[in-house]
Amino acid sequence: MHPVIYYTIIFAAVISTCHGTPINSPNNCGYDACNLGQPDKLNVHIVPHTHDDVGWLKTVDQYYYGARNDIQHAAVQFILDSVIQALLENPDRRFIYVEIAFFWRWWLQQTEEMQNTVRQLVNQGRLEFVSGGWSMNDEGVTHYNSIIDQHGLGAEFLRDQFGECGRPKLGWQIDPFGHSRQVASLFAHMGFDGLFFGRVDLQDYAERNKTKQMEMLWKGSSNLGEESWLFTGIIPRTYTPPESFCFDVFCDDEPIKDDPQLHDYNVPERVQAFMNAAHDQATGYATNHIMMTMGSDFQYENANQWYKNLDKLIRYVNAQQVNGSDVNIFYSTPTCYLYALNKVNRTWTTKTDDFFPVSLNPHGILTGYFTSRPALKRYERYSNNILQVTRQLNAFSNITLRNAIFPLSEAMGIAQHHDAVSGTEKQHVANDYAQRLSQGIDSALYVINEAYKKLLSKENQSLPVPTQYLCQFSNISECLPIEGQDSFTLTIWNPTIQSIENIIRVPVTKKYTIQSPTGETIAADFVSISLPIKNIPGQTSSAQYELLFGTQIPALGFNTYYFEAKADATIEEKSTIRVTQNEACVLQNEHLRLEFDDRGNLNSITNRDKNITLPFSAQGLYWYTSFQGNNSLPEFQSSGAYFFRPLTPNPLPVSNSRNITCTYADQVQKALIIYNEWACQEIRIYDGARITEIEWIVGPIPIEDGIGKEIIVRYDTDIQSDGTFYTDANGREVLERKRDYRPSWNYTVYESVSGNYYPIPSRIWIKDNQRQLTILTDRSEGGSSMHDGSIELMVHRRTLYDDSLGVGEPMNETAYGKGLVVCGKHFLLLEPPESSAFYHRNIAQHLFMSPMGTYALPNVSYANYSKIYRQTWSALTESLPYNVHLLTFDQSSSKVFLVRVEHYFELNEDETFSNAVQFDLQILFNRLGRIAELVELTLGGNLPLNEMKRLVWITNHNESSHWKSTDPNFLTSTVVTLSPMEIKTFQVTLQ
Amino acid sequence: MHPVIYYTIIFAAVISTCHGTPINSPNNCGYDACNLGQPDKLNVHIVPHTHDDVGWLKTVDQYYYGARNDIQHAAVQFILDSVIQALLENPDRRFIYVEIAFFWRWWLQQTEEMQNTVRQLVNQGRLEFVSGGWSMNDEGVTHYNSIIDQHGLGAEFLRDQFGECGRPKLGWQIDPFGHSRQVASLFAHMGFDGLFFGRVDLQDYAERNKTKQMEMLWKGSSNLGEESWLFTGIIPRTYTPPESFCFDVFCDDEPIKDDPQLHDYNVPERVQAFMNAAHDQATGYATNHIMMTMGSDFQYENANQWYKNLDKLIRYVNAQQVNGSDVNIFYSTPTCYLYALNKVNRTWTTKTDDFFPVSLNPHGILTGYFTSRPALKRYERYSNNILQVTRQLNAFSNITLRNAIFPLSEAMGIAQHHDAVSGTEKQHVANDYAQRLSQGIDSALYVINEAYKKLLSKENQSLPVPTQYLCQFSNISECLPIEGQDSFTLTIWNPTIQSIENIIRVPVTKKYTIQSPTGETIAADFVSISLPIKNIPGQTSSAQYELLFGTQIPALGFNTYYFEAKADATIEEKSTIRVTQNEACVLQNEHLRLEFDDRGNLNSITNRDKNITLPFSAQGLYWYTSFQGNNSLPEFQSSGAYFFRPLTPNPLPVSNSRNITCTYADQVQKALIIYNEWACQEIRIYDGARITEIEWIVGPIPIEDGIGKEIIVRYDTDIQSDGTFYTDANGREVLERKRDYRPSWNYTVYESVSGNYYPIPSRIWIKDNQRQLTILTDRSEGGSSMHDGSIELMVHRRTLYDDSLGVGEPMNETAYGKGLVVCGKHFLLLEPPESSAFYHRNIAQHLFMSPMGTYALPNVSYANYSKIYRQTWSALTESLPYNVHLLTFDQSSSKVFLVRVEHYFELNEDETFSNAVQFDLQILFNRLGRIAELVELTLGGNLPLNEMKRLVWITNHNESSHWKSTDPNFLTSTVVTLSPMEIKTFQVTLQ
Repeated sequence: MHPVIYYTIIFAAVISTCHGTPINSPNNCGYDACNLGQPDKLNVHIVPHTHDDVGWLKTVDQYYYGARNDIQHAAVQFILDSVIQALLENPDRRFIYVEIAFFWRWWLQQTEEMQNTVRQLVNQGRLEFVSGGWSMNDEGVTHYNSIIDQHGLGAEFLRDQFGECGRPKLGWQIDPFGHSRQVASLFAHMGFDGLFFGRVDLQDYAERNKTKQMEMLWKGSSNLGEESWLFTGIIPRTYTPPESFCFDVFCDDEPIKDDPQLHDYNVPERVQAFMNAAHDQATGYATNHIMMTMGSDFQYENANQWYKNLDKLIRYVNAQQVNGSDVNIFYSTPTCYLYALNKVNRTWTTKTDDFFPVSLNPHGILTGYFTSRPALKRYERYSNNILQVTRQLNAFSNITLRNAIFPLSEAMGIAQHHDAVSGTEKQHVANDYAQRLSQGIDSALYVINEAYKKLLSKENQSLPVPTQYLCQFSNISECLPIEGQDSFTLTIWNPTIQSIENIIRVPVTKKYTIQSPTGETIAADFVSISLPIKNIPGQTSSAQYELLFGTQIPALGFNTYYFEAKADATIEEKSTIRVTQNEACVLQNEHLRLEFDDRGNLNSITNRDKNITLPFSAQGLYWYTSFQGNNSLPEFQSSGAYFFRPLTPNPLPVSNSRNITCTYADQVQKALIIYNEWACQEIRIYDGARITEIEWIVGPIPIEDGIGKEIIVRYDTDIQSDGTFYTDANGREVLERKRDYRPSWNYTVYESVSGNYYPIPSRIWIKDNQRQLTILTDRSEGGSSMHDGSIELMVHRRTLYDDSLGVGEPMNETAYGKGLVVCGKHFLLLEPPESSAFYHRNIAQHLFMSPMGTYALPNVSYANYSKIYRQTWSALTESLPYNVHLLTFDQSSSKVFLVRVEHYFELNEDETFSNAVQFDLQILFNRLGRIAELVELTLGGNLPLNEMKRLVWITNHNESSHWKSTDPNFLTSTVVTLSPMEIKTFQVTLQ
Repeated sequence: MHPVIYYTIIFAAVISTCHGTPINSPNNCGYDACNLGQPDKLNVHIVPHTHDDVGWLKTVDQYYYGARNDIQHAAVQFILDSVIQALLENPDRRFIYVEIAFFWRWWLQQTEEMQNTVRQLVNQGRLEFVSGGWSMNDEGVTHYNSIIDQHGLGAEFLRDQFGECGRPKLGWQIDPFGHSRQVASLFAHMGFDGLFFGRVDLQDYAERNKTKQMEMLWKGSSNLGEESWLFTGIIPRTYTPPESFCFDVFCDDEPIKDDPQLHDYNVPERVQAFMNAAHDQATGYATNHIMMTMGSDFQYENANQWYKNLDKLIRYVNAQQVNGSDVNIFYSTPTCYLYALNKVNRTWTTKTDDFFPVSLNPHGILTGYFTSRPALKRYERYSNNILQVTRQLNAFSNITLRNAIFPLSEAMGIAQHHDAVSGTEKQHVANDYAQRLSQGIDSALYVINEAYKKLLSKENQSLPVPTQYLCQFSNISECLPIEGQDSFTLTIWNPTIQSIENIIRVPVTKKYTIQSPTGETIAADFVSISLPIKNIPGQTSSAQYELLFGTQIPALGFNTYYFEAKADATIEEKSTIRVTQNEACVLQNEHLRLEFDDRGNLNSITNRDKNITLPFSAQGLYWYTSFQGNNSLPEFQSSGAYFFRPLTPNPLPVSNSRNITCTYADQVQKALIIYNEWACQEIRIYDGARITEIEWIVGPIPIEDGIGKEIIVRYDTDIQSDGTFYTDANGREVLERKRDYRPSWNYTVYESVSGNYYPIPSRIWIKDNQRQLTILTDRSEGGSSMHDGSIELMVHRRTLYDDSLGVGEPMNETAYGKGLVVCGKHFLLLEPPESSAFYHRNIAQHLFMSPMGTYALPNVSYANYSKIYRQTWSALTESLPYNVHLLTFDQSSSKVFLVRVEHYFELNEDETFSNAVQFDLQILFNRLGRIAELVELTLGGNLPLNEMKRLVWITNHNESSHWKSTDPNFLTSTVVTLSPMEIKTFQVTLQ
């Protein structure tokens, strides 16, 4: 086990219920600090800002320090040094900062004196944090659990160091590659009053700019009503200054030369150019306020250059007012701009769909990144799983090791960045993200061990608890710590509040008997590992077999299984296991029946309970040819890390023939379908399962032919889906999609395939009246329904050309000198539409919060083990409702906890569970103590909900976004009510 | 006339004799502020610096503002903003600043508060001015008058604003393209204790680095003894930091990453790399001190980045001392490094020659710039002529319009920059320099007019003095204000302290009678303008003729000549003028005889007085083919703005035939030799002249053949010069040169022509026992003696390839869409060696301080004119010695004057005049008043000489550089004694 890194955590989470702003501080921040312009002028809000990617072409630490400036000149430490200095020089100046991953690094290195100086700037509204997440998260491929966490992490830091003046008032998503309605809803619940971003589809932009609808009220949820509405504005020019007004050290625009004694005095022409730019911009906007984002990527490294010129620009432009100019220009912030718009007191059009996908040019659509770096995308989701489990273990064992969880929280915060989990970073940066997650998990593993020391120990037993190992390579059947061992234990933690039945697969080198927590010997299948994982470079296990057995893990608790090598450990398969090769075969359990022909084609799936059958006209792995061009014109746009652009709309099968091997064991029946040496899938139904599991292994994708390939798994059925399919947003609410259609504008199709791709963070479905085929994924993938009855999910891609958005590398991942091999799973659910949600909602929660197994080598016999150690435990002494999910369970200090509970069903999707639900929060704490105080917080955890006052906006149908006032005293009991899709955040203080 | 620009002059020159440092200021600057390191350590002086070219790829104002950053990112305003801020943040930090042209611009824009902050930094030695000239002047092609002026201008500003703490202690010539012994001598007399520079011949560097002779005592004069010695050090790496330690915003070196919590902690390897760099550098130097120049061109735009890393470097490197490291590193300045070397108390080797020329690679020798941009080189010299005259006129008319002279002083200060008059700037920058000089002259002309209003007016006459016009295009016989006029005046000011006889040439459209100041009609030649100036693009004059007449202008005074069109102004030449075409001819006066053959060859010059004849085997215009390469290797080094590299050592004649036209008039006899449509020369002897004048016109140099050409005028004689020739340094002392030889090291020849080129700022000669041929130039040119008896001077060049030193343009000047036409003059003196100096010393002084003619249109008859206006005047009522030159005569305020007088003969070159000379300074002031106080100052004018205390250095022959102590009370009278080549500077206060 790696040594734990003891990070300096300089912030803590506890929120005082009577915090307010410190009495002695004459603060004037937030809306109070705003210049609202002049009613009869065109008010230009000058917003100095820097956009600091938390990793992209360089790693986050390289960006922080300004290392590897040969790759890209960027040094955040100097940006912050420099901006603070510049702000001090002129009290009119304003600056916003966004990415707390950087700000936190910088803050730790400052003297107390400098920290106090900065606090003063914040208290005076001169430095303002917007968004304030650890990073500016991607919106397409991120999971809502991690979006909330990463915003919570930044918000906690800001709250702790800056109090109320440090609380961000809006979302600032200027760079991500599309915008999710779910994110808007989360932001609304974080208490944000608005959202600004810079990148929408060019057709959408053109239309909105023409009709002055660049700003709108976005209805963020189809479940949550006006509490989820968010004022949303599209910034012109993505987030750059008007042409010729970039005064950064890395821009070449002409400075304001205002000394008439020197050559080249240029004040008149610069003022005129600015006034023209202001009027040009104003044509697209509805009010007499516009915002000019004065900055760009990693700008303000020498803030003085920007501000000195802006000071002059402001002075000389406003000086023209005496000559009748209507342009009024002043330093501002997005918050003040938002406030000015609010004060304009007008109505706004609304939007109910989302901003996916985004075309930047007719042939450049940001859909490739939905799949780019599938291994990183999975590792990020896995890391979150570990993080949530570790938090629970830390809390329930009451070991208060939150600091040792911080590295993983921090790595996850960074991984949410829109060039991290998105896959749009350089290879060495992707490696760094993975390394951070890995180091975070190492540190978490320390916490897991410390927690189990308490949770596994029976009272009055002093024998040490054996070290717990995570077998992170279980997905390729590798678990080295147990290889060849005569005995070992597997302890499985279930992080959900329902007990869960699972089939467990343990890769082994010999036969074992398995003792259940209650001492029974468990029946297990001992089968050869069928998937060709031995071909995967880096796989070093000598295990040839796996044991499969059924478990039921208690809610919020664990079971330990004891493995003991059989005395007669001669290696032979159980005779009951039957294998067929290249024969037609049928996999079947009491719920499901799958039929394959002898050429490896899945012919049909039948839901035996519901008596519905889904015939497949085709199912399997296909590839699109990546378009390869020089990017000089849209026609020559390459497919790459960001863009998915196939050469033709027709994917090719990865092979024209398949081999099929069917295996029938007690716990599982499975069909392994080998397409060729780099592509296979294994279709499984476990004993008792209602879903079909399809594991796929793809790679190394061959490129010897010089052609980039993008691999999909396709499911072609006879469902009459009528051009319609459904995809989730960030693992939560689901949106209806229609082929070749956009709800917001009259859509012109330039790319028939890519233009229909959507992010699939957790699921996609098609349906007709009788049948719904829902496919759940284990990570975000790009997906679509290219024709009726069909679902396709892109699982891997390898392109040979950069797509010219800056990353400067083709999307060509390798490992061990070969193209990267990726494996993953799809989960197929065939149900009538009305019963689908009941399953997929629950399965999805169990997928991102899977049971976590850890192995140990106790070196004692089972008899002794069971005497010394606890083998089963649950935090819950009472059951909780099926439609409630425990999203966050985090210990802030020994008696204080941060808890998020959610209703994870949408309205009207399940007859029973799409209703409001009530339960007693105390149940979660029964093992820990009695709840003394319960404070409901905003979703970000940084403000008591009863203190949240959001700005009110009115739609053009006269609807008001007024937030239902929260009774500050509503929490007279610990009983919580949740409506469909509602998340509630509580600070719980125990007695 | 252009309007005068009224500059804000914020500094004034008067030196208080009891100035000292202000009593209330606890100053700790200069040597008192120095860290002298530790005796047992290798002491590394970290010298943060920026090198800010006063124009090069951009104009000085573009550099100041950071305009045209597309050409080169450079913005001095931000450098100074940023450095001041960084200095304030840590009192250990140091910075030096050099170029006052920039600092002055910045200073004017600062608040008083900021000015006081900066003063405090200066008083504490944290900000130190070194060199402190208006620019970092070139050393090859500059004239000593302007070097002194430009240093005086900067020194005056610093003295005025910062007092003694602002006084530079050393010369900092890190970038110029060779180093002149004359400059070393001037610097010594400015009170500098040392000189550092970065660019010497690579062979010289290698030898010195091997023998630890990178630092030495340079004997700056062969006339002035130890007062002219200057400690001189060669900086390694020109002036850049050691490899991988550039922390500028525009460098990519790895920062010190010292946060162990972040990835890529690199302190150990960076510390080790630095210690290796320090030890490597130390091998070339003689003491346990080394200096690391931490900076480069236009660096420190974000000083924080540099300093933050340097702070860390210093901390971590010195932290290794506890582990036995011998490296001691600290912030320092060149001044402190110099002081530390002085305190080491060792002896130093000496040098008596200079550092010309400089090879940067075996085929890249910095000799092209000796000639590059010959028109700018001439205009700069002409502008100085105007400047000196204007100062005299301002002073003698007592109009105290010094502020209106400032634009020209400032333009001249800028023009001395090593990428200005050197010709190594981009074309648009050269244009800007010329424009500045032109605007400066416009402003000076205002002063000239104001002065003449007083000097020309007779008492009790109230008629206004007519406007004086400068005919700046007289060199191409164009003077538009007088064209077609019936009468005009020509007033000629003689700025020297000897009366001068001159032949005046006035371009006219008709015949005039000329009245002398005393009313006589002057005999004049009326001749056709023979030179083909009408072909020169831009020449617009309709004058076809010129009037030539002899004048004698009084010392420091003027004569006015009145021109009246003849009543019978029929245009016909005087019958006495004889012209021959393509015949052999002889030009002859009482002193000279020149013989030409019928093919236009100059066969011989005879000095009839001395009865010596110089036969010419060849004389005329030739061209070298420019080497054209891609600069990828020294072998492929192109000839360009910096480098002169001929393809072959053999120049070709510009044509194989010539046309000769000889003209015999009363005032002049001349031979016009036309080579072709782009090259001609006219060889003239004036009535009574002892020198031969050769005017040449070259251009447009044809490039239709795709070949760059470098044009020389060659003089091949039978003088037995034995490989030796003589060239001046900056118009002053002369150095002996030997072909294919360097006095300081064993020279390996790679470029047989270019390696023998030297700068010829004013003269070159060869000699044998009987005869010395001295050629004086009207500007700096490159020149050599490629074989015995031969002198060649490069007068123009047009190359088609950039030579890869950054300028990024070929040396390809154009005007009016064609290659630039340049005209100029050589002055040939044939004398026995022992009588040569008597003439060339005096002529040279009259060449750079020529009589200045101004034209006016009085619109009154001569009779009336002579009644109303003064027609002759001299400031001198007594004569002054022949070997004294009045270098500077400048009025600081109504009663205070800055005066420089010099002995302009070297030791032992003239029997009479190479001796010390004494005269009464009062003579210069007889017209102005009685001298009340006389303070002798350092040459820069910024310190009373009796306060100057220079550091003492000891040579390896045990000679001491001890400065002869000056008796503070020696000036009991106004009688001044000058030794050969001595310049004395006085502040004169009148009663």
